[in-house]
Amino acid sequence: MAPPVFIFVGHSNSGKTTLIERLIPELTHRGLRVATIKHAHHKVQLDTEGKDSWRYKNAGAALSMLVTTSALQLVADADEEREPMQLAKRFLGEADIVLAEGFSHAPGPKIEVLRRALGKPPRCKISDGLIAVATDCPETYPELPHFTLDDLAALANFLLQYLSQT
Amino acid sequence: MAPPVFIFVGHSNSGKTTLIERLIPELTHRGLRVATIKHAHHKVQLDTEGKDSWRYKNAGAALSMLVTTSALQLVADADEEREPMQLAKRFLGEADIVLAEGFSHAPGPKIEVLRRALGKPPRCKISDGLIAVATDCPETYPELPHFTLDDLAALANFLLQYLSQT
Repeated sequence: MAPPVFIFVGHSNSGKTTLIERLIPELTHRGLRVATIKHAHHKVQLDTEGKDSWRYKNAGAALSMLVTTSALQLVADADEEREPMQLAKRFLGEADIVLAEGFSHAPGPKIEVLRRALGKPPRCKISDGLIAVATDCPETYPELPHFTLDDLAALANFLLQYLSQT
Repeated sequence: MAPPVFIFVGHSNSGKTTLIERLIPELTHRGLRVATIKHAHHKVQLDTEGKDSWRYKNAGAALSMLVTTSALQLVADADEEREPMQLAKRFLGEADIVLAEGFSHAPGPKIEVLRRALGKPPRCKISDGLIAVATDCPETYPELPHFTLDDLAALANFLLQYLSQT
């Protein structure tokens, strides 16, 4: 079972991460189990060298999991670019809703985070799957629902309403 | 689809981690996609404070994934103790074989790593699911298949044969 995925797009420094960070409690307070997917373009450290889970991965395990009594960590190969909906189906079946960041070219409904101070046009078009805009530029895409960058409650309600209609 | 799980049990310092680390390439060279599960009793750091994936988890996401072009990391809640077979079904469906370490009380076929120098009796019994012993004490459980601590090729062949018969 694949949970529904919303993709948050926008230019660097538009505030995507902070917006998602503030949206998560709005959704959990409404009783939803939230999962997130962050697309990191640069090379980031996914495990700590020397940890047993790192040793297994380094020895050739395709997937290496570490389990404590309260949480787990999984590090896995991702040889080809993977898309949020595919990742959600494979690994995030427990979630009620998935918020993905930074997959502008992947299929799926998108919310653009657009900030006037950046002085750039929107990153995505309605034909890319844009369903709403979180912005201080309400004149952009007037045909789409708009949310201010601070009204996370309204955005959470919109996402729930969107899910109930699809 | 749940991949088959083998649980490696044994006392602390019996050499479980090193044995699994050396067994992994024996299995990957035979064409298997290997996954591992390590049970950490102590509190270990599963993500790095300040990383975006950490911020999302800290904001209340039940599951937080970070994806690069070559790998992914997932950190998830594990509120109740989870067992290897359950974890394998939920997260490791891509694997052909799962090697778990440190779940002595979980159901599943077990291989005990037993080292004479520790001077301890075996940790598990045949009635716990023990199917083989990797040891320098061949007199222990003479009714079970035995492997020396260095013959990982023989152990890999045994696991494959076990799978083909079950």
